Amino acid sequence: MKKTKAFADILGIVQEITEKIPFNQVLGLTVESLDLDHPSVRLTMQPQLIGNFIRGSLHGGVISSTLDFMGGLVAFLGVLKTMQGQPLQVMAERFARIGTIDLRVDYLRPGIGSHFIATGYVLRTGKKVSVTRMELHNDERQLIAVGTGAYTVA
Amino acid sequence: MKKTKAFADILGIVQEITEKIPFNQVLGLTVESLDLDHPSVRLTMQPQLIGNFIRGSLHGGVISSTLDFMGGLVAFLGVLKTMQGQPLQVMAERFARIGTIDLRVDYLRPGIGSHFIATGYVLRTGKKVSVTRMELHNDERQLIAVGTGAYTVA
Amino acid sequence: MKKTKAFADILGIVQEITEKIPFNQVLGLTVESLDLDHPSVRLTMQPQLIGNFIRGSLHGGVISSTLDFMGGLVAFLGVLKTMQGQPLQVMAERFARIGTIDLRVDYLRPGIGSHFIATGYVLRTGKKVSVTRMELHNDERQLIAVGTGAYTVA
Amino acid sequence: MKKTKAFADILGIVQEITEKIPFNQVLGLTVESLDLDHPSVRLTMQPQLIGNFIRGSLHGGVISSTLDFMGGLVAFLGVLKTMQGQPLQVMAERFARIGTIDLRVDYLRPGIGSHFIATGYVLRTGKKVSVTRMELHNDERQLIAVGTGAYTVA
Repeated sequence: MKKTKAFADILGIVQEITEKIPFNQVLGLTVESLDLDHPSVRLTMQPQLIGNFIRGSLHGGVISSTLDFMGGLVAFLGVLKTMQGQPLQVMAERFARIGTIDLRVDYLRPGIGSHFIATGYVLRTGKKVSVTRMELHNDERQLIAVGTGAYTVA
Repeated sequence: MKKTKAFADILGIVQEITEKIPFNQVLGLTVESLDLDHPSVRLTMQPQLIGNFIRGSLHGGVISSTLDFMGGLVAFLGVLKTMQGQPLQVMAERFARIGTIDLRVDYLRPGIGSHFIATGYVLRTGKKVSVTRMELHNDERQLIAVGTGAYTVA
Repeated sequence: MKKTKAFADILGIVQEITEKIPFNQVLGLTVESLDLDHPSVRLTMQPQLIGNFIRGSLHGGVISSTLDFMGGLVAFLGVLKTMQGQPLQVMAERFARIGTIDLRVDYLRPGIGSHFIATGYVLRTGKKVSVTRMELHNDERQLIAVGTGAYTVA
Repeated sequence: MKKTKAFADILGIVQEITEKIPFNQVLGLTVESLDLDHPSVRLTMQPQLIGNFIRGSLHGGVISSTLDFMGGLVAFLGVLKTMQGQPLQVMAERFARIGTIDLRVDYLRPGIGSHFIATGYVLRTGKKVSVTRMELHNDERQLIAVGTGAYTVA
């Protein structure tokens, strides 16, 4: 897809907002890629993210927070694909309207690693609701957790 | 149920551990009640927990983190009911083995309020797996979110 | 709530359609009550609904089918409460638009019994999406399974 | 993996039981492949499986039933991979112990088609619990629904 200036701008805004959301800063989430088909977000291990002393593993809530955020991002990028040629303002308003309806998280392995990469893809982009799948791998490419979410997109 | 000393001790340990888990401290989770049938946990609004600037509402991940923690606590208290008369050490080991298998969260209203109360109850206490339902209300008793979780208990 | 003739009519239509849906007939689902706050549906055990020979218990899919149907019914009745005074045709069109977005089912006990009662309630009635909780009990009032669903309502 | 005679026998038993389960017969489920890594099950459209007259589409419960069955099958085949060299009886007993803990189904498109193929894969094979993802496509390879399930495997 050829990217217009508005397209480049909206991706800049998405990245900026992502990293300015207060709780995303607590988590230390940073955008790795806003490729429309293969976006990814990085989570760096920090002592305050630990849920289990003994194992030194991530709190389950850190994992669900990251997957929830990733799902919303994936849902928005899916919508964005259908908005080519639209003005920046319209795209930005659409971003502001993304909201999680529900989320399922499956915890597969303890969240142990120096950093983690969240990825995701859209299962369905609807006019009102999008459905996404998300995955979290650690720095050894082990699958730590997966998620499925439904998001309002309008 | 008549509470033995070991029982009082395990509840003290649960409260202490709960409030010492690093990410629970980030969230500011505190135990309100460890009543075996009606436990509750308090989450106090803080600027760093915000997910949506404009609304000033909780990040979805704060909500899922709180409900996930609550589900594990409820699952453990359900198991504890079946452990009367057992030594403290055995009960504490059981607590350490609680783990989330999976979690569903339904986001019903924006997480707006000065504080929030998470409650929950057991749907089924099994030998290997327990299933729980959780709810999060704000300080005006509005239902913000609900969850359902499956937890390993052995 | 005072019920208009259109209201009585729509409930008649809902009952008729419910029991005419081909797969509901296979399941043998019948409406017990269309009370707006406490609707219930009955499932009668039949040999063809068995999933486990040895136990003689319901197939998991019979349970999920029943809870899914119940969730949609509960979602519609929740919407109906907001439609008082509207013409029958408008209410009927709304019924036709109910659809399941996603569903979680937790299987708590084997589905053993002569019959089963599904109940449910709305957690949130939205303009676009409603969220419901459902429960299935057997004839001894044992809780067999619970569900949570998100439904499109517009 | 080299298949022993016991291995071939257990797959024969799995196929036979699958197609003899009363409610699977109602659904008309047949095993397409028991390849350990890429199993698949076929669902043939029949008038009695309809949930929506107007569209002529599958009842949501037919979809959840099929995905639930598929998840259990995938979970068992995942366990079977770890049981090489064990006697038939031990493998058969393991099959009998598979049970659904919980299931999430996301309905993406109306279930329209002459037949449908369910596939699935294991996300995690545990000693007690396995987690699987499932998908249902129609005869035009459109993705109709996906699922995620947790299954007891011991």
